Amino acid sequence: MSTSNTSNQSTSIGIVGAGLVGCLAALAFTRKGYEVTLFDLRPDPATIDRSKRNLRSINLAVSNRGLRAVANVDEKLTRKILRHVIPMKGRMIHDKTGLKQESQLYGLDGECINSIDRSYLNDLLLENLVESGVEVYFDHKLVKLSNVDTKPILEFATRDGNIKEQFDYVIGADGAHSHFRHQMQKGMRMDFSQKYIDMQYIELYIPPDPEKKFAIDANHLHIWPRHDFMLIALANEDGSFTSTFFSPWRVIESIKSSADFTHFFKENFPDAYELIGEEALANAYDNNPRGSLMQISAYPYNSPSGKAIIIGDAAHSMVPFYGQGMNCGFEDVRILMELIEENEGNIEKAFLAYSPQRKDDLDAICKLALDNYYEMSSKVTNIWYLTKKKLDYTLGSWFKNKWLPLYTMISFRDDIPYSQAVAIEAKQSRILNNLQLGLVSSVLVYGAVQAAKVYAKWNSR
Amino acid sequence: MSTSNTSNQSTSIGIVGAGLVGCLAALAFTRKGYEVTLFDLRPDPATIDRSKRNLRSINLAVSNRGLRAVANVDEKLTRKILRHVIPMKGRMIHDKTGLKQESQLYGLDGECINSIDRSYLNDLLLENLVESGVEVYFDHKLVKLSNVDTKPILEFATRDGNIKEQFDYVIGADGAHSHFRHQMQKGMRMDFSQKYIDMQYIELYIPPDPEKKFAIDANHLHIWPRHDFMLIALANEDGSFTSTFFSPWRVIESIKSSADFTHFFKENFPDAYELIGEEALANAYDNNPRGSLMQISAYPYNSPSGKAIIIGDAAHSMVPFYGQGMNCGFEDVRILMELIEENEGNIEKAFLAYSPQRKDDLDAICKLALDNYYEMSSKVTNIWYLTKKKLDYTLGSWFKNKWLPLYTMISFRDDIPYSQAVAIEAKQSRILNNLQLGLVSSVLVYGAVQAAKVYAKWNSR
Repeated sequence: MSTSNTSNQSTSIGIVGAGLVGCLAALAFTRKGYEVTLFDLRPDPATIDRSKRNLRSINLAVSNRGLRAVANVDEKLTRKILRHVIPMKGRMIHDKTGLKQESQLYGLDGECINSIDRSYLNDLLLENLVESGVEVYFDHKLVKLSNVDTKPILEFATRDGNIKEQFDYVIGADGAHSHFRHQMQKGMRMDFSQKYIDMQYIELYIPPDPEKKFAIDANHLHIWPRHDFMLIALANEDGSFTSTFFSPWRVIESIKSSADFTHFFKENFPDAYELIGEEALANAYDNNPRGSLMQISAYPYNSPSGKAIIIGDAAHSMVPFYGQGMNCGFEDVRILMELIEENEGNIEKAFLAYSPQRKDDLDAICKLALDNYYEMSSKVTNIWYLTKKKLDYTLGSWFKNKWLPLYTMISFRDDIPYSQAVAIEAKQSRILNNLQLGLVSSVLVYGAVQAAKVYAKWNSR
Repeated sequence: MSTSNTSNQSTSIGIVGAGLVGCLAALAFTRKGYEVTLFDLRPDPATIDRSKRNLRSINLAVSNRGLRAVANVDEKLTRKILRHVIPMKGRMIHDKTGLKQESQLYGLDGECINSIDRSYLNDLLLENLVESGVEVYFDHKLVKLSNVDTKPILEFATRDGNIKEQFDYVIGADGAHSHFRHQMQKGMRMDFSQKYIDMQYIELYIPPDPEKKFAIDANHLHIWPRHDFMLIALANEDGSFTSTFFSPWRVIESIKSSADFTHFFKENFPDAYELIGEEALANAYDNNPRGSLMQISAYPYNSPSGKAIIIGDAAHSMVPFYGQGMNCGFEDVRILMELIEENEGNIEKAFLAYSPQRKDDLDAICKLALDNYYEMSSKVTNIWYLTKKKLDYTLGSWFKNKWLPLYTMISFRDDIPYSQAVAIEAKQSRILNNLQLGLVSSVLVYGAVQAAKVYAKWNSR
């Protein structure tokens, strides 16, 4: 683990954070022949009782951007991942009676996003890292990042006291509350903002069905949209669903007891109430933690020296409503590796080029994620939205590759940068609005003509 | 210092940060009979060699809001302060030839803002605190804030090890890089943003004139506006001026040597070049630190429990271009004390009421401070701005108290909240623009009529 075993030929990379993005970055650098060491403040997941997980992981959906980024590192790994996903081809909208469900497809040609278990994916990446000979150290809490201008030093608190390690380059992938970022900020001018959105979430659980395995359609992301609040559910391989209840804080705070909570569910989500069960709901109200949602943005992502960089949630933590958090973090890794290639292995140049190149895309997806809450919780039941969406998808199927719905560009295309997708959508949206106005006007004109005919007839009597 | 000497009748207040705002807050609470303890991480200023100060304090201008807030605590203190200020009645604009100076008055009736030495003011406040029996502890670095929901505990690192103190209420006034705020954020949902503006500053010094004491007019804030960059100077009591050079980073970074720097000054600020002197300029380039400028905003300012609050720069660090940073921090104290009075001594209610009441005003002044850089560095030389300002001030003198220029509302009125001043200004600005357009149109119409007459004459020949 000391830098003494760094041969002169090789370049050492220290990565902080062994979550999904940190692991993929470690794997990417290792495969390119760099000497990688990975640290995490948490205990080794292999030593942890999985049943005691923290109930605060909204299920993951992996889509094209994430898969392409993994394939860029290791084609075989993508196939391993796909073996354990549950494809979701659309949203299933549950109405308030609990009797009606409506499928709204995501893609033009049945493209799917993929529900996956976070810990399965993390374990898979860690296994691959260990097989590749990467040194991974758990229970290492970063306490200091120094010497960033020349050869960065990471200092960790461990059970055996503090240790220092020096690397040629260091990467922070330690999540929204990143210590790495906090340390980096002390030595440079980094803009930073964190903004809570007025929303909490509670994780719930729909058990497998004893007969049909999945109690509701496995291949949809289920949504119970109720404008102000909503419930969602994503299938797991064992037939269960991980469900999440989102609401503004005042809604959950106005519910004063587990009995009120189950009553609230019975009233607003009668079918989900049956699926989850009254006892489980009451238990979740009493015991499950309430998560808060926050957006984080920082800029620039790299140190002025080009020796340190932050990626993933450490740089851009977004709300979960576009299912792009992990996909975007994986894409960070792909863009970084491509920049290193473009700069012929000069990592410093790549780090310096990364921030200006990536900023617009990260800003765009963070904003889309926030906007999509409104779409999921309300717009999916709005008639103007639905006819616009129908038109959008009709044009999409008529003019393949010339007209692309936004969701398609974000989730099923990995070649269109986020910011470009937003710009294309803005143009298309103006056309759609005009088309819709045109349709509405035509109907009105037709109506007026009919009325005039009736009047003329009546007048000529 | 332990809380054991807290009698049951009294309420204990712990304040972190013995800068200007923290000291005024301590004084305000003491005068109301609360038991106040004040902590600061810095060494006691009385033990410090003043000549070794850090050259990073842009001179202070105290104006009506600051003075009112001080008077609210202690009328006599205001008079003591005013004995050591240098009133500035306007800006003195220096042109690029170094030969022309133009005075632009701040107020309608010669109202002044007041240049004051930061350390004099800080010492004065500290003296008053000690006289009032407040316990002040220096060399106390806050390492932890806990128990915020019931009875907050502050933990400090001192030279004699860590100590813990418990208080009924705690206040963070420890500046832009507030540890108090950082600790508070861990236990609550606080929005936060820090944004660097692309600008550095270097402190310079204009020595007293051996004959006339002040080398340039003492009663003006001197500005050398050059669009992209600018120089300012404020008088000190001893006849010297503290001068500050502001520029985007690329400008200072394009200057590669002290010789280049003096050449740059000679070219752009020929009169200031003479006043400061070539050697002093070269020395400042080589040795003086380059400061960066940052805006910080946080929300809410209080903990949900109503037991902890942040004020001053810890809550809203602004750029120095409206001269309101300290004035606004002092106003924080006034508003807080007024809220405690309104709530009949219920500090918890006052803390909870403070955030929603104060937010719009703090947002408004932070934005004005940023906008004013543009005004100071560029607009003061723009003909449209100058005629608009002239109209503005003319209307102000015609319609006393009915028409108030923005600068007057911000700097010379303490009864108009910042956000209200901005709203009034927006309305007035629309009227001014229309008046100006009206004037321009009248001139054009007059010109057209004259031209038509000439044409008619010519045509009828």
